[in-house]
Amino acid sequence: MNDQTMAAAFYRGDKTFAVERVPVTTPENGEITIRVAYCGICGTDMHVFHGNMDARVGHNRIVGHEMSGVVETVGTDVTGFVAGQKVTVRPLDPDLNCPASKAGYPHVSHNMKFLGLDTDGAMQELWTVPAHTVHALPDDMPLDRAALVEPVAVACHDVRLSELQQDEDVVVVGGGPIGILVAMVARDAGGNVTVSEVNENRLAVARKLGFDTVNPAKEDLVAVINEKTGNKGADVVFEVSGSQPGVDATTAVAATRGRIVMVAIHAQKPTVDMFQYFWRELKLIGARVYEPEDYEQAITLVASGVIDAETIITDVSPLSEIQTAFESLDSNPTAMKSLIKVGDFA
Amino acid sequence: MNDQTMAAAFYRGDKTFAVERVPVTTPENGEITIRVAYCGICGTDMHVFHGNMDARVGHNRIVGHEMSGVVETVGTDVTGFVAGQKVTVRPLDPDLNCPASKAGYPHVSHNMKFLGLDTDGAMQELWTVPAHTVHALPDDMPLDRAALVEPVAVACHDVRLSELQQDEDVVVVGGGPIGILVAMVARDAGGNVTVSEVNENRLAVARKLGFDTVNPAKEDLVAVINEKTGNKGADVVFEVSGSQPGVDATTAVAATRGRIVMVAIHAQKPTVDMFQYFWRELKLIGARVYEPEDYEQAITLVASGVIDAETIITDVSPLSEIQTAFESLDSNPTAMKSLIKVGDFA
Repeated sequence: MNDQTMAAAFYRGDKTFAVERVPVTTPENGEITIRVAYCGICGTDMHVFHGNMDARVGHNRIVGHEMSGVVETVGTDVTGFVAGQKVTVRPLDPDLNCPASKAGYPHVSHNMKFLGLDTDGAMQELWTVPAHTVHALPDDMPLDRAALVEPVAVACHDVRLSELQQDEDVVVVGGGPIGILVAMVARDAGGNVTVSEVNENRLAVARKLGFDTVNPAKEDLVAVINEKTGNKGADVVFEVSGSQPGVDATTAVAATRGRIVMVAIHAQKPTVDMFQYFWRELKLIGARVYEPEDYEQAITLVASGVIDAETIITDVSPLSEIQTAFESLDSNPTAMKSLIKVGDFA
Repeated sequence: MNDQTMAAAFYRGDKTFAVERVPVTTPENGEITIRVAYCGICGTDMHVFHGNMDARVGHNRIVGHEMSGVVETVGTDVTGFVAGQKVTVRPLDPDLNCPASKAGYPHVSHNMKFLGLDTDGAMQELWTVPAHTVHALPDDMPLDRAALVEPVAVACHDVRLSELQQDEDVVVVGGGPIGILVAMVARDAGGNVTVSEVNENRLAVARKLGFDTVNPAKEDLVAVINEKTGNKGADVVFEVSGSQPGVDATTAVAATRGRIVMVAIHAQKPTVDMFQYFWRELKLIGARVYEPEDYEQAITLVASGVIDAETIITDVSPLSEIQTAFESLDSNPTAMKSLIKVGDFA
């Protein structure tokens, strides 16, 4: 029995969040309860905000999955974690009986639950999750930076699946938060990175971070990349724009035998220059979320400062102001990553 | 000086071939002159016949590249070949200075000449080619079968790039000559192969060859493959149809993390379910022509009988009847591979 309460932000539909007091929970067998410090607002959360995912999340859902915190309580049969330890969560609860899991790919299993969408997420003071989703953080990692581990792990997964080699030429199509993180991880892996983006605010961020940039609405992207690469083209192209022009750019700018990584979610089916895949033996690689090793790499990159957290995190709001935070992010062309400060302690 | 003449078939435009007598040629430095035995009619040759490639080939072109023959004369600075030896030709003359060649992929080099399209081909009694294009054949290989080495090498390349593993489930979308050869090579590599094809004549050939078949116009391909694979889907899918429904089938039928090999030439840009590439981490692999190792494997598979030449070769015509042979192939729904018997000696 527990009479204590905590704050939690519920998505109620129609671009509305309600912060309410609810009873605190304690971990069941195999679970860990985490006191949440920070939780980032993901593009997916914005889709929820806009009502595009109501069928999946309903109107009584606590969202949030880009989080950091400290262990509050460890359930029975959980080893390796102690109260007070800094942690983050890899928010995937796979169906281990599906063929994809049995083949070794539980992160894309058929009936996987994504924590914060299919179950309640981290926009609450205490979050109880399966212990297998929890990753330890270094004791000295600032918890605001640690909230970047999840999106950085996406970028680590994308770059790992691209099999990027030292000194290869890379084009990132789309310079939003994920695109910029992909660019950072690709540069750390040895790539010569160019960011293609039509939003001038985002281009300014990319340039500030030291990347070559192209605005394809003003410049000929293919000509720029051919000039840069001696007419070879880009060895690796990341499609992070989710747009038809972005898809067109991938095949136009890729080198013969180039690898194109599909990071973006294309709700509409784009047309694809399939002849180029044949003619130049291009490869398209779909990449979704992350595997445990991507999380470990992301923790290392955030800890080491390879990820420029100061530039990425553009604002922090308390949980009580989550409604305003979502509204602001929706209308702010200069924002990159907005964090919600969920707990008062951090 | 050489007053001898030989027969050669020229494409003259407008669905017309003209067999004429022309002076025989002798090899220059680094070349080999081959007495041609058989030459298959490729789908590309049919495109030439229909006038779709006039801009590339002109109206004074000897086509043909699926050939067999014996060495007639060896040019200076050529080693490893002797007159009378059975050979076939890998009809690629790459631009070795382009970035793709320098990266190790001359077979898809930017300005490659394809023998029989960009230069004269094998529909002539004596064919002079660069020595680097010539592959030796076993002495006991029948020369009609040997004319299958080129298309079989295409299939070997496709299957090699798919990284097909023993016991993986394979769907070949499109059961024409190349699709059937891909199916044969994939089966030899250990795949459990299903051929999807709408033409009942071709389905009958596939069944005769022992393949599981689906007519997607009459059956639900996805349901059939899910039933066959325990709802896993196909590990490897070959798109050999060149059609929008074929492209749609590839993403629908592929397993999570499945590999889709783009064999067909899509002159029109199809729409592609890019969300599925992301969601199930599919991989698309473009595959074009062949590399030397594919030729060596193809020679082995043709020699060993893995390729059922009797079923594949549906008719043989003399060079003098090339016009009729193209017209017949154009209107014959049961034909698979038509050969032209170019030389009288074989």
